[in-house]
Amino acid sequence: MSKKLLGEVREEIEKRGVEAWPILVGSVAKGTYLKDPDIDIFIRFSPDYSREEMEKLGLEIARAVMPDGIASYAEHPYLRGKIEGYSVDIVPCYMIEDPEKKISSVDRTPFHTEFVRANLSEEQRDEVRLLKAFMKGIGVYGAEARVQGFSGYLCELLLIKYGSFLEVLKNAAKWKKRTYLHLGNGGAKFNAPLTFIDPVDSGRNVASAVSEESKSIFILASKEFLSSPREEFFFPKYPRILSHGEILDMVRMRDTKIYAVIFEKPDIIDDALYPQIRRTLNAFVSILKDFSPVSSFFYVDSLRIVFILELERDLLPGVMKHEGPPVWHRNAGDFMERWKDEALRGPYVIGNRLYVDRIRERRKPEEVLEKGLKNYKLGKYFESQKEKICLLPLEKIINELNEEKLTEFFDFKFPWRR
Amino acid sequence: MSKKLLGEVREEIEKRGVEAWPILVGSVAKGTYLKDPDIDIFIRFSPDYSREEMEKLGLEIARAVMPDGIASYAEHPYLRGKIEGYSVDIVPCYMIEDPEKKISSVDRTPFHTEFVRANLSEEQRDEVRLLKAFMKGIGVYGAEARVQGFSGYLCELLLIKYGSFLEVLKNAAKWKKRTYLHLGNGGAKFNAPLTFIDPVDSGRNVASAVSEESKSIFILASKEFLSSPREEFFFPKYPRILSHGEILDMVRMRDTKIYAVIFEKPDIIDDALYPQIRRTLNAFVSILKDFSPVSSFFYVDSLRIVFILELERDLLPGVMKHEGPPVWHRNAGDFMERWKDEALRGPYVIGNRLYVDRIRERRKPEEVLEKGLKNYKLGKYFESQKEKICLLPLEKIINELNEEKLTEFFDFKFPWRR
Repeated sequence: MSKKLLGEVREEIEKRGVEAWPILVGSVAKGTYLKDPDIDIFIRFSPDYSREEMEKLGLEIARAVMPDGIASYAEHPYLRGKIEGYSVDIVPCYMIEDPEKKISSVDRTPFHTEFVRANLSEEQRDEVRLLKAFMKGIGVYGAEARVQGFSGYLCELLLIKYGSFLEVLKNAAKWKKRTYLHLGNGGAKFNAPLTFIDPVDSGRNVASAVSEESKSIFILASKEFLSSPREEFFFPKYPRILSHGEILDMVRMRDTKIYAVIFEKPDIIDDALYPQIRRTLNAFVSILKDFSPVSSFFYVDSLRIVFILELERDLLPGVMKHEGPPVWHRNAGDFMERWKDEALRGPYVIGNRLYVDRIRERRKPEEVLEKGLKNYKLGKYFESQKEKICLLPLEKIINELNEEKLTEFFDFKFPWRR
Repeated sequence: MSKKLLGEVREEIEKRGVEAWPILVGSVAKGTYLKDPDIDIFIRFSPDYSREEMEKLGLEIARAVMPDGIASYAEHPYLRGKIEGYSVDIVPCYMIEDPEKKISSVDRTPFHTEFVRANLSEEQRDEVRLLKAFMKGIGVYGAEARVQGFSGYLCELLLIKYGSFLEVLKNAAKWKKRTYLHLGNGGAKFNAPLTFIDPVDSGRNVASAVSEESKSIFILASKEFLSSPREEFFFPKYPRILSHGEILDMVRMRDTKIYAVIFEKPDIIDDALYPQIRRTLNAFVSILKDFSPVSSFFYVDSLRIVFILELERDLLPGVMKHEGPPVWHRNAGDFMERWKDEALRGPYVIGNRLYVDRIRERRKPEEVLEKGLKNYKLGKYFESQKEKICLLPLEKIINELNEEKLTEFFDFKFPWRR
């Protein structure tokens, strides 16, 4: 299938007399794919073409091969479509000689393919497949924003570094807070939980997408697999989905105050949406910190984005300890005057700082949230919905929520331990 | 009066043929005393006497002069009494040549007296009096544990360093987090908010007793006095004492949970008691931290020691977030096994750490305090009373408490701002 498509692309290029060369990249080219892989074909244009010409010609050629494709946009536009059940991406880029001198980051991709082909033996390709399936099973496979995990290329580099699936796990089981990996000479420094210097571009961290949590889960799963290898690491069981009634029982036992904040799902790609969701969730938790948040999570289904916020309490006392400047600060005098007659108690000193006890105006979560939202920048979509944000007590709207997603949270278990 | 006492001491020494020399020290000797000063007479013994001989002879001579005196004990025993309305201390010590080679810290005192006499002019003695009265008025005069403030000697050194009362205040108004002062060559480093190297012993910090709060109050009062000098800094008004009813109104407005813990006052000197009280109060606040302490204080009256603890709430939720080890820790596996079936939720990962949500067994302050006290060492006296400790809701016992002391807390104002 890949060969057939490559031939068709080559034909369209020749037909137009364009100076460009098609190349198969990705897991199919490297022989490290799992079931139902994407087919990734890149068209490398001579740098003599302007960016506009390259993009225009590239999409024209791609569309000739895949008329039903949908133009998408990363750094370049590219065409994404389905052919005989396979997801196919056709991506125009530049033919460059040195991947560190790329014009766009996609220009580097063929060098990754080449590097992996040159450095993986036949047997090691199967080891890569094991590693990818393991990552997938434990829920950390993929560099996309939804997962914040390990890309296919990162799996391949780990395999090249350590030699086999089991060796990767044995080494990961020893990773600590900061992990800095490379093949040979190292490279730039990154402020990331995991760094793997790209062997074709020493200024790039291949693991930049890996969140601290994904790294932690991989370390944990590696340790557990080594001491007790089980099929569940690759093929996790589905959890038993709790009914709304069962979830309410758990909520009652927790005896906390749980709220949902619900948004319509906007038409935004996941890689743009998920960072906005995380930013917004963090803002909610920060704003409500005085209510002692116990936990928070979100889920996205086909229609909605639902945030869940669990607080220890839903009423703050009438008094509030209000922090002033250190006594030596030039505003200390102003603070003393400002609160002279208004404070419930004080001004007084603790350590080197001034404080007063003042009447608290906002004592309920919804009041504090309303005020706090004015000072926080949410993700772009949520920013536009700010006026509609409200806290819904979970008990009252649980019947509208997704039992499967709620179960994932309220009865959380690592995939290999269900 | 001092001269008369000195003569009597000298006579008793001569009568016994002892090799010792009496000397007048302290504020009277230095001419820096306020109203009703103590009279401090030291008897300096030749180092040829053994410690026991020196102490025995010293007390015998002192008692001959002041038969009603009471033997007290610091590093040495000494005699404390009242003569014609004056408090008199007669203290035996050694005659040494170099104050850095002291045998006991009292041996150094005559050198302090000598240094101050040699370095203060007649006019500056009155400036010292102003500074001491100011310190007294704002509540930070005295190095004793009850006050944790500025000793007389420290006031004298500040005056010597800066030249006049107003210059001391102008400089103090610029003090910041760490203040390191000396007259000339500096000395040892101390981990203290305020350091003033003793000019007669460079290994000693004269300001070691000064708490961060006392220093802050002095900075603040200095700034305020300079911008608006008033008599109240020296002669603060007494606050209007609130009735129990008025205090209860304030408590109701605060809408917090306030408890008292009451102890009988033991027969322990203040300098031993106050550190124990502070340590015990800190322990109570730490143990109850989950209830979000708003404030805490204590007072001591003639019969009792009363701790007041103000909490934001008196009930914790049914669930508790329980922190486990980082995923790479060798106990991570044990934690996973330990909580496999017991957790309300999890184990799960946040950042690089394992957590579970578990059922909370102790949800009320009294339950948490009872458990927590087992793991905290209180001050010695309070340690002996541990079994009797209980939290009394303020509303229920307010009639037994001291209105004046409660007013000082609930209607706190700096002395010069009442």
